[in-house]
This record gives sequence, structure tokens and C-alpha cells, in this order.
Amino acid sequence: MSDLLHQERVARAALCRLAEPGDPRLAGLVAELGAVRVHSHLAAERDLAGVLSDVAARLSSLDPETDLEQAAGRGLRFVIPGDPEWPQSLADLDHAPVIQGRGGQPLGLWVRGPLNLAELRCPVSIVGSRSATTYGVQAATDIAAEIASSGTAVISGAAFGIDQAAHRGALGARGCTVAVLACGADRSYPAAHQSLIQHIAEVGAVVSEVAPGCAPTKLRFLARNRLIAALARGTVVVEAALRSGALNTANWSNGLNRALMGVPGPITSAPSQGVHELLRSGATTLVTNGADVLEVVGASGDHAQSFPRGEERASDRLTLRQRQVLDAVPVAHGVAADSIARTAGIGLVEVRSVLAKLTSVGLAEFTESGWRLTSEAPAP
Amino acid sequence: MSDLLHQERVARAALCRLAEPGDPRLAGLVAELGAVRVHSHLAAERDLAGVLSDVAARLSSLDPETDLEQAAGRGLRFVIPGDPEWPQSLADLDHAPVIQGRGGQPLGLWVRGPLNLAELRCPVSIVGSRSATTYGVQAATDIAAEIASSGTAVISGAAFGIDQAAHRGALGARGCTVAVLACGADRSYPAAHQSLIQHIAEVGAVVSEVAPGCAPTKLRFLARNRLIAALARGTVVVEAALRSGALNTANWSNGLNRALMGVPGPITSAPSQGVHELLRSGATTLVTNGADVLEVVGASGDHAQSFPRGEERASDRLTLRQRQVLDAVPVAHGVAADSIARTAGIGLVEVRSVLAKLTSVGLAEFTESGWRLTSEAPAP
Repeated sequence: MSDLLHQERVARAALCRLAEPGDPRLAGLVAELGAVRVHSHLAAERDLAGVLSDVAARLSSLDPETDLEQAAGRGLRFVIPGDPEWPQSLADLDHAPVIQGRGGQPLGLWVRGPLNLAELRCPVSIVGSRSATTYGVQAATDIAAEIASSGTAVISGAAFGIDQAAHRGALGARGCTVAVLACGADRSYPAAHQSLIQHIAEVGAVVSEVAPGCAPTKLRFLARNRLIAALARGTVVVEAALRSGALNTANWSNGLNRALMGVPGPITSAPSQGVHELLRSGATTLVTNGADVLEVVGASGDHAQSFPRGEERASDRLTLRQRQVLDAVPVAHGVAADSIARTAGIGLVEVRSVLAKLTSVGLAEFTESGWRLTSEAPAP
Repeated sequence: MSDLLHQERVARAALCRLAEPGDPRLAGLVAELGAVRVHSHLAAERDLAGVLSDVAARLSSLDPETDLEQAAGRGLRFVIPGDPEWPQSLADLDHAPVIQGRGGQPLGLWVRGPLNLAELRCPVSIVGSRSATTYGVQAATDIAAEIASSGTAVISGAAFGIDQAAHRGALGARGCTVAVLACGADRSYPAAHQSLIQHIAEVGAVVSEVAPGCAPTKLRFLARNRLIAALARGTVVVEAALRSGALNTANWSNGLNRALMGVPGPITSAPSQGVHELLRSGATTLVTNGADVLEVVGASGDHAQSFPRGEERASDRLTLRQRQVLDAVPVAHGVAADSIARTAGIGLVEVRSVLAKLTSVGLAEFTESGWRLTSEAPAP
């Protein structure tokens, strides 16, 4: 069995050198035939439905066994379906729609770091604009810190702006965080985030489906976004202009039936425009803090949140009749009860009894000049 | 018939001096028996189910005919159901739930101003916090101006903050606006808005269901809010803290099955907290400008709005294959086509033909050093 798994791993390591990540045709073939058979078909230079002929030619130059060994030497493991560490959530990709030509379960994940991907607790992705505002960075940091403190893993893409803020928020709270890269998991992109990515590799996990050493390309970012969405129970979009790549991740989240959340911002802020459009579309839940996020993705009841209310006041518990009398009691100079009765249009006897009640709850008082409101009473 | 309508008007004018506005018991009796019979029952000092005994005593001191004459002398008309000017939308109040003890169709509306209430086009209410921020005031002004320019009437409550901004936005755009007051329509509350309310009375309409001369009370604000919601096709909440009266208007809008809209703001802003809660509840549509509002309340198709998109680029129309080649073309120094073929993992013949295509759409160019991206190509 271990031997079979090894063959499977070697075949997948070879295939992931041959095709672009997230190629739904290859994912489909592998799902149907298994990686070992697809690999051996290609090695026999058979044309698989004509679609993979161009990669077959490159097969002979590969040495996946050595590839795996060298990667292990650099602290990278290649996790594949069947491994205990394989995140089951990725299987949903085989049933999700293809978006911008990408789709399907990855052949495997190259992972660097101590975090076990199968043990992420209720993971949440936080994504957004690379050119984030101070507002967006603060929001992403705060939300990431809050949910990471509660044990939720924060997934993002290690990019500038919101991604970086999400990782830093989680790290600052000593929580779990996972960076999913569009380049090899042994590389750092963007280069300016080398120390951030190194830090994540030391305490969390740096993950990629493209082979070690590979450079990031536009297509690989699109493929990577589907993993960010698929690894999480829900995705939070913090700031996203109308063309933001974060909206691609949002599409994936929808396509995978994951919870999609958006943090609103000023309507005057271009980087919030894409989020507002998502929120307008109705498929997205507005969140303003970590508790909101946990409520959306948490196991039912785990994070049931009470509706935030203003402080309750004594006047909230008044009957309609008591309110009517209270409305007729003056603020400044006290008046006699019969004057209040006239103003309120209620009989004197009833007014006296209501005034006594209002006094007992501290809303009215009887002074030298007569009845008036206390400072506890709500402003008229 | 005109005589019957006159009797009805006199009876309603009398009743509206007797009870607090929005008393659902009185509204129910009037709906069942008609205002003339309710009035004559009370005049005969009969106890109507025990509920109105306290008001009957005050009936003898009233002179509704003189009341109507004096009001007319001050430019106030008393519009009642059956009048051509009566807004049909108010009938929905007879079937809406009672909220905070208030409910039912008003007995009549005291109106000051040239605007005919039955001719308001697609009216929209804009409400929000009295202690609004600069952000909220700007948002309310802009949205009011935009929808008023398109012919939509803007309804609000003439209060400080958002209400004021909504009226001023509409007035600035030379549009229709209606102020619904909790005091008599001949009075100005708040006093600081006397000139604003006077201005509205000259070009729009100042409306109240409480009799001329009456002071505003907490209960009357609650009753007034139901009219703001009922007169409009939809209500926009701009800023509202968790205890804001605007949320009462929002409840009315929901209870009346009107469209409820909310303008988001920074998650760090307390006056946006109530709006964010509304948006989280799911019954509220996020709006960021007047076009969004018109789309929600407009007749189907009238204001169908296209999804705002970033500008389209040449690279948006590429096939997957063309993208793969484009990803392999360097930015700075040109390279030979076979180098691109190796990087992309695609045969040389195909790469050459794709490069020709990329050149024709202006994304790649052939220079002295070889193939490279043009400045039109998307940044890697």
C-alpha cells in the first residue's frame, strides 16, 4: 500500500511538472484513470485524446524521484490525495465549475512548515486588494487576529496589502496561518515578503500546487485562487477594486458553495467598490469583525452572536400609557399633576398613579415647583 | 357627496385633536365605522369598548370647523382618504403590524406646500442619524440630489444630520422633497430648521398627521416614522447608530413590505453600525449611489443598471493558449521564440503563430533582442 502510494506520489510529481496547475482536462483524466496510469500512458507517448500531446515530449527529461528527494532536502513535502494530511475539502473542486479555464483538484500540494493541513480548524481565507488602504489593512489585521485567537486558521496569498495584513494579524495573535503561493513553495513571491513567507514556513504552512522552483504566472495566480477558496470554509473579501483578483477568489468561493463574506467601507473608496458590488449581489454576507466571521463559518451554535444593542434604559420598559404621561412631564420647571393630565389628555387620577410609577423607576421627580423629569429620563 | 366629504373631514379633524397620532385602536374603529360615526358616538359620550373614554371628555371643547378654517388661513389643507390628493400608499398601514404601539392609517394629513401628495413620482425616503458624520451627510446629499434630479421625490423628517442633508440635496437639485413632521405642520421642529422647513413648504410639502399647533413628543416621532416609510416606495438608511430612530423607520419599511436600503460606511464608524446590522440581516439592499437606489425602487427596467466593470483590456479576450504564451514573454529584454516555447511548454510552431496574434493586438513586439511584452501588456 505504501508502495502504491509512493508510485502515485512519483507520478503526480511528474505530472505537476508537465502541465499548468488547475488544468481541468488533466485533473479529469487523473480522477478517471489515476495518476500512475495517466503518467505511463504519457510515457508511452500515446496521445491522450489529443489534448496532452505537447507535454508528452517533455516527459523524458523529468526525474520525479530525484525531484521529490531534493524537495525533501529543502524541507518540502509533496502531499497527495490518500495521504492523512490531504485536506478533504479540496475534493469539492472536482464538482465545481471551471472558472477562467482553471478547475479540478490539484495533483498534489507542496508544503513547507509544521502545520498539518488536515488539522486546520475551521479555516477562513482573507483576501483583498494589493493596493489596500490603511483602513483595509487595519480591518484585515483586526479580523485575522480575532479569528486566529479563537483557533481558526487564516489562509491567504502572501501578496501585498490585504493578504499581508491577514497573515500578520494571525501571526501577531500567535494563531495558525497558511500562505498559498502561485510560485513554487520554496520560493518567495513577492520578493519583498521573503521574511514574512519564511516566518509562515516556520510556524504555519507555505503551500503550492506548482512544482518547486516554478515562477508565478497570471495563469498560476488564477489556479492558486481556487485553492485559497477551496481550503477554507469561507472567504472574507476586505477591499477589492472592480478588477481585483480577489473577486476571482470570491467567484471560486461561490462556485464551491463556501460562505462568502465582505467587509464594507466608505462608498467613496474605490478599493471598497468591488466588495460593495459583491454585497449588493446578495450572495455575500456583510461582516464587520471577527465575531461576525466566526458566526458565519462556525459550527452551528458555536459562535451564535447576539444582536448588538444599545444599552437598555428604564424608559424602554414603559407601557404606552406611561410613555404618554412621561412625554407630558416638563424638563426644566416642575408643574402640577393636573397640568400634566391636560397635556397628556388623560384623567387626573390615572396620571397621579402613573407619576408615582415613573418616580419609582427614577424617570420623574416631585420638586418644589412640581413634577419634572429627572436627568435619567430620555431627552425629549 | 362633497357635503359628505366635508362632514368626514370635520369629524377627522376633531378626532385628530383627541387621540395621539397612530393610535391603532382609533384607526381600527374609523376603518370599521367611518370617522363621522366614531365622532358622533364619542359626542354622545358613549364608551366605545372602554378604550376611548378618556378622550370623550375633551370633545366638547373642540371646534373642528373653526380649526379647519384657521388652518386654511395659515396655508394648511387637511387631506383625508377620499380626497384626490390622498396618497393611496398609506392604505397599506391598515394591514401592517403595530410597531411600538403605533399603527393604522392616519386620520388625515395636514399639508403645507404646493406639492400634490398623490403625484409624487416613485418617492424614496432617506433617513438616518441626527448626529451624522461628514461622510454620512455627504452620502445623503449626493444620493438625494441624484434621485431628485431624475424626478424621484425625496421624503425625510427635517431633523438634524441625515434628514437635513437629504432635503438639501433634493432642493439643491431643484427636485421634489417632502418633510414629514412629528409636530403640527404649521410649526418648525427643530427650531434651527425653521428656514429649511419654510423653504420646503414653498416648493415641496410639509406634512403632519397631528393637528396644527401640536408639539412633537416621543410617541409622535414613532408615529411619524411610519408615515415616512409608508409614503415611500423604499427607504434608504444612511447612518444609524444602534439606538437610532432611523431603525424604527427601517422596521416600518420592512413591516410595510417596502424596499429597505442601507448605505455602508467604515466598520470603525459607530453611526454606521446600525446600518451594517440591517445589511447583515439580509432584508436590506446595499446602495452606494442614486443609481443603485433607483434600480431598487424603479419600475422594472426603468433604471436597470449595468454591473460596473473595470475598463476592458486587450488581454481579457485572449484564449487560454494565448495567455500561456503571453505569460512566457519577458518584460525587459527580448528573447527568441524557441526560448518562449520552452518556458511555456508549447511547440515552436504554435508559439510562433500565437506570437503573431499577440503582436496584432498590441501585447507583444519583436525587437532587436527578440520577443518582449509591449507597455500595453498586463503587468506580470
